[in-house]
Amino acid sequence: MQQYSKFDQFLMEKYPLKEEYLNDPDRPVIYELLHVEKHTGARLGRIYTRHGIVHTPMFMPVGTQASVKNVSPRDLEAINTQFILSNTYHLWVRPGDDLIAKAGGLHKFMQWNGPILTDSGGFQVWSLAKNNKISEEGVDFKNHVDGASMFLSPEVAMRIQNNLGSDVMMQLDEAIPYFETYDYVKNSVERTTRWAKRAKIAHARPNDQALFGIIQGAGFKDLRRLSAEGLVDLDLPGYAVGGLSVGESKEEMNRVLDFTVDWMPADKPRYLMGVAAPDSLIDSAIRGIDMFDCVLPTRIARNGSLMTKNGRIVITNGRYKDDFSLIDADTEDYGSQNFTKAYLHHLFKANELLGQNIASVHNLRYLLKLMEEMREAIYNDELIEFREQVLEDYGYNKPNARLF
Amino acid sequence: MQQYSKFDQFLMEKYPLKEEYLNDPDRPVIYELLHVEKHTGARLGRIYTRHGIVHTPMFMPVGTQASVKNVSPRDLEAINTQFILSNTYHLWVRPGDDLIAKAGGLHKFMQWNGPILTDSGGFQVWSLAKNNKISEEGVDFKNHVDGASMFLSPEVAMRIQNNLGSDVMMQLDEAIPYFETYDYVKNSVERTTRWAKRAKIAHARPNDQALFGIIQGAGFKDLRRLSAEGLVDLDLPGYAVGGLSVGESKEEMNRVLDFTVDWMPADKPRYLMGVAAPDSLIDSAIRGIDMFDCVLPTRIARNGSLMTKNGRIVITNGRYKDDFSLIDADTEDYGSQNFTKAYLHHLFKANELLGQNIASVHNLRYLLKLMEEMREAIYNDELIEFREQVLEDYGYNKPNARLF
Repeated sequence: MQQYSKFDQFLMEKYPLKEEYLNDPDRPVIYELLHVEKHTGARLGRIYTRHGIVHTPMFMPVGTQASVKNVSPRDLEAINTQFILSNTYHLWVRPGDDLIAKAGGLHKFMQWNGPILTDSGGFQVWSLAKNNKISEEGVDFKNHVDGASMFLSPEVAMRIQNNLGSDVMMQLDEAIPYFETYDYVKNSVERTTRWAKRAKIAHARPNDQALFGIIQGAGFKDLRRLSAEGLVDLDLPGYAVGGLSVGESKEEMNRVLDFTVDWMPADKPRYLMGVAAPDSLIDSAIRGIDMFDCVLPTRIARNGSLMTKNGRIVITNGRYKDDFSLIDADTEDYGSQNFTKAYLHHLFKANELLGQNIASVHNLRYLLKLMEEMREAIYNDELIEFREQVLEDYGYNKPNARLF
Repeated sequence: MQQYSKFDQFLMEKYPLKEEYLNDPDRPVIYELLHVEKHTGARLGRIYTRHGIVHTPMFMPVGTQASVKNVSPRDLEAINTQFILSNTYHLWVRPGDDLIAKAGGLHKFMQWNGPILTDSGGFQVWSLAKNNKISEEGVDFKNHVDGASMFLSPEVAMRIQNNLGSDVMMQLDEAIPYFETYDYVKNSVERTTRWAKRAKIAHARPNDQALFGIIQGAGFKDLRRLSAEGLVDLDLPGYAVGGLSVGESKEEMNRVLDFTVDWMPADKPRYLMGVAAPDSLIDSAIRGIDMFDCVLPTRIARNGSLMTKNGRIVITNGRYKDDFSLIDADTEDYGSQNFTKAYLHHLFKANELLGQNIASVHNLRYLLKLMEEMREAIYNDELIEFREQVLEDYGYNKPNARLF
């Protein structure tokens, strides 16, 4: 089961759980606002799900193929993982959503008993699959595993996710490049809203699983508003901001969040997809975001990059060959507290896969701890000071720093 | 720290530890015979080391490059691992024994606090390295990593192992094919005995680390005797039988063990190198062997082969795609008790490395449990019945069974 940090335990005592939220038969996901940071408006909150309670803002490790790469569910629990994400497209292609339904759902299949969010599959259809062709009905494509022709529509995305049984499902949207023409984006936004309506109608288990809408609109303020208003009309249990962190600058992302979040309901969770950089996590929380996910921590771990309080460490670098200090004394995962940098360096140099496990768990714990500390900073109305300290320590203020 | 099975805990109570063995300043490895099986002569015993007490007969997982592949020290502890083996040749080549000495020794470097046995490096010089050339002095070769010229002698093997700080060190011997001429084997055996003398002289830490001799002689009874007698004259703290499990038949191995073990001191541990097949483990214990090691369980695990009470399972086989039974209800490792065969099948098919961890830990636990049960069978004087049951269940009696 999920484990809570000391501060999260304190929050549980300070703000007792609401009985009516715990047992609401109709709403599988309920957001509770606990505190608004005085200087920024950042939200300290709580999400009730059928698989546990999580505090926000929070970060979700990504388990693409029903496994967070190189990390076991037991490892996830040990570092206080609250929520994970898994990818609809990958599970649909292999092993198939029917098989996972037969297994009793994704939680049971992968033995993760905390909440799970699944994406719609749309992003991978654009980034991984071949020959994709979009129409009002959906997307035709050939999958990246065996090249078979497949068709993804709002209804298919729901059927798959209903089979997976995730706590939060995402509507199918179109993943578009950031810099598209106004007309293209406008058409795409309008279609995404129509797809959201179809998704809501197709949703077979609304009392068990919460469908989130995805606000698109690239950098166009009026289109973000159009998107948000169309989706909010559908009264979905949560909303995501999509189409960010796809190559635009951080300033641009913050600019879009600044106005987009204002149109998102305050009584529902707000999710920013695909973000894990420490500065972006803090800056987005400042703008009112509650949920994040990204493959970054586990992906860079597999190449030996560690995220630490004091910035990036590339453990394969020769300087660590005889560095007998702990991997990261500030981070409480098993590996960081037990092995030296020299040992982890050796594991990577010798292609011993234990190294990938140690580095992956480490990076996840770094981010989960950052979020725990962020929640505490929000509670204490010290988020600006927290931001300055984290960025200074991590090296954001150094010229030419390679951060990841 | 090492964890003991219930039966081993019972043995600890039944046969209280000997104070004088625990605190012997001169002998880093002491063997204590607890019980001789009535019908076979198999030995239930105990080995005292500077890093803990282990019960025998026992099996040592192999951590070639200071890591049991895909398995963390914590995983090893959780399955009651008593003793592990690491490879001198690999550690010498990378990261280097000097570096491990600087790290405080191999136990500290890899964070395994139980006992460690290191081989001499000789076997890998013959199986992995290139251009090897043997002389009375030692072996010239080029290593398999960067092709650098290196020289391994009895003295160098001791220096490396003294740097590693293993509990049991092996003398350098010559690894020869099983079917060599009598004259070649005789010369080799005599040289191995001379090398053992040189090793003993070169040993810098005899009070901390126990040097074992290796009895060679292929299938020649008189040469096995010549080898054993020469080595026993040196009064080493333990002895291994080398040159078996290298392609000869099981009957041949048993034949050689039958006479060789008689010349090995009864008050010292007896180690058979490179064996993990269930029938060979039992048949060798019946002949008086106490210690075993082999890469087999972790190597076949990486290809998806699982050792179970009821024989081999190849988890990548299509029949397991929708088999929602536990991986192995009879084996108590975390993976086997929590995940289904269908999930493990999926992990292997999707190249998710968590699968290798689950399968590796599983196979090790299978073997460690087999040894635990074997010790209990010896204690109960029921080893023959135990052998029949294990072989029947595993499938040895089925025609054409693929066992591994």
